[in-house]
Amino acid sequence: MRLRIRLTVLFALTSLFFGLTQTSALAAKFDPLPSWNEGKSKSAIVDFVKAVTEKDGKDFVPEPERIATFDNDGTLWVEQPMYTQLIFAFDRLKALAPQHPEWKDQEPYKSALAGDLKALFAGGDKYLATIMMSTHAGMSSTEFDQIVKTWFVTAEDGRFERPYTKLAYQPMLELLSYLRDNKFKTYIVTGGGIEFVRAISERVYDIPPEQVIGSSIKTKFEDDNGKPVILRLAAIDFIDDGNGKPEGIEKFIGRRPIAAFGNSDGDLEMLQWTDAGVKKHLCLYVHHTDALREYAYDRDSKVGRLDHGLDQAKQHGWTVVDMKSDWSRIFSAESDHR
Amino acid sequence: MRLRIRLTVLFALTSLFFGLTQTSALAAKFDPLPSWNEGKSKSAIVDFVKAVTEKDGKDFVPEPERIATFDNDGTLWVEQPMYTQLIFAFDRLKALAPQHPEWKDQEPYKSALAGDLKALFAGGDKYLATIMMSTHAGMSSTEFDQIVKTWFVTAEDGRFERPYTKLAYQPMLELLSYLRDNKFKTYIVTGGGIEFVRAISERVYDIPPEQVIGSSIKTKFEDDNGKPVILRLAAIDFIDDGNGKPEGIEKFIGRRPIAAFGNSDGDLEMLQWTDAGVKKHLCLYVHHTDALREYAYDRDSKVGRLDHGLDQAKQHGWTVVDMKSDWSRIFSAESDHR
Repeated sequence: MRLRIRLTVLFALTSLFFGLTQTSALAAKFDPLPSWNEGKSKSAIVDFVKAVTEKDGKDFVPEPERIATFDNDGTLWVEQPMYTQLIFAFDRLKALAPQHPEWKDQEPYKSALAGDLKALFAGGDKYLATIMMSTHAGMSSTEFDQIVKTWFVTAEDGRFERPYTKLAYQPMLELLSYLRDNKFKTYIVTGGGIEFVRAISERVYDIPPEQVIGSSIKTKFEDDNGKPVILRLAAIDFIDDGNGKPEGIEKFIGRRPIAAFGNSDGDLEMLQWTDAGVKKHLCLYVHHTDALREYAYDRDSKVGRLDHGLDQAKQHGWTVVDMKSDWSRIFSAESDHR
Repeated sequence: MRLRIRLTVLFALTSLFFGLTQTSALAAKFDPLPSWNEGKSKSAIVDFVKAVTEKDGKDFVPEPERIATFDNDGTLWVEQPMYTQLIFAFDRLKALAPQHPEWKDQEPYKSALAGDLKALFAGGDKYLATIMMSTHAGMSSTEFDQIVKTWFVTAEDGRFERPYTKLAYQPMLELLSYLRDNKFKTYIVTGGGIEFVRAISERVYDIPPEQVIGSSIKTKFEDDNGKPVILRLAAIDFIDDGNGKPEGIEKFIGRRPIAAFGNSDGDLEMLQWTDAGVKKHLCLYVHHTDALREYAYDRDSKVGRLDHGLDQAKQHGWTVVDMKSDWSRIFSAESDHR
């Protein structure tokens, strides 16, 4: 009997040992960032995460302080040939046009409805603001959320022939998950409209609405015949771009991020603010270098300009992702380029 | 040998059985709200939490939608004889006075420094705004955070002879924990300054800064000799009171709460907004009825007025907490009244 017991114990210990070995082997093989090619960018991310999560390590950062902020357009999803929200605005304008016969002869509606973007952009910020307010204000917040959600169901990108929600970058989706698995709180800090992005943030990025910071218009709480509503007013409240990004982060989060991700000059101040933190941190630029699988642009682009971003990144030693060489795939679907 | 094995198995199963029985008995006895007396208010809270967390129940609410919003002054901690933040402002004014000899002869500083609150309040909102801006603006957000934190270390309430951070209501601290244990996200939605409350929210309420919504002044991101700072400007950005509360909730969270807690007319719109939700929800007013252990006030009070709150609560069937009879203790320390 004693022998049997000893054998049982031995067997149990052996199983445990091999079990553990197998688990370790699996862990060693498991790659949380499979769409990232091996190289400097991937190492910078993995090394940073290891450093701030290693208990008793010199760079350990407690969980509540693990704040990571991501720009949206051009960093988490495609921003070319123009911001998705602008495409939504034009589509919305067309949908509303029958109720506004006067738009036919009135700028900037006339140019926008005719698809004459050149004339529209020539009108500058004032023209664009008018288009935005006509399509984003004048309804309740609940109604707007529904309008945006409905639009995203059917709207498709012409070049990639897929819904805009499928134009999120697979490597960045993996990065979001990887950070969350390591107890980071992931935020979107977008120059785009806060409620526009919130309408899809949970579905596309697994980011709840309260972790989206963005540009906003003023709202007004009102009693609509005994039913309280929050009305969207045609007046700008806050522009979450440039200086606005660190200001928005301070207002909404009240804590400095330890990781920030951007792709253009509009994200520069957010990266500077993150870089000025005393704790170990990661600043990363996504550089669009892949004309075949996505787009290639920087200084000369109409959207996502990098007049200062790349210079500053080099100067400060920030990580610059070269999409062409650093990413093994761009999107999650089977074919990247159709 | 076989007998021994059988006995071993029997012993193991017996231990397991008695172990489980003991655990169930403990669970049945465990009261998550020990400072709440049995009664309508406590039942309303417990029944609500059970209903929205019961998987497959008709009122089940998924975890990400379990948003609970709490007013701070008078709901989570004492607001009499005046808001803690105002006491901070007066103390701060005194600390700054040596650098401002001109204040001696200049209103509203003269009255404030002389402790002549009657003259000060007679000057209305303009006087108060001047005091607030002189004490809350003109420094970086990091500096302000430090100033507030330092003040809270030594400042004490005269009547209760304890730091203001120890004037949080024990029953409400238990309620916050109880909701969080049931996967609620707990928010403070205060008429007070967002960064003032954030300085102590984690320590006092276990609520991180990003879950504090409050009134704010404008800020400006600036490069201070190569070091980026966020400066606090002497201009109001947002008043998170009355209509502002649901507007702030929509802006910061983007989701309607299913539980809201207030104590005055400033919280009314937040409760109305919560009450208008289609999912099961809880609206609760803390009614100050205990002059001996805390304060008793409603319609006639200078702070925490209830001109409409109580009427609306009755009309809509909201839960009204009677502090005197519903709470077995007010504060966490040994003696409630000294």
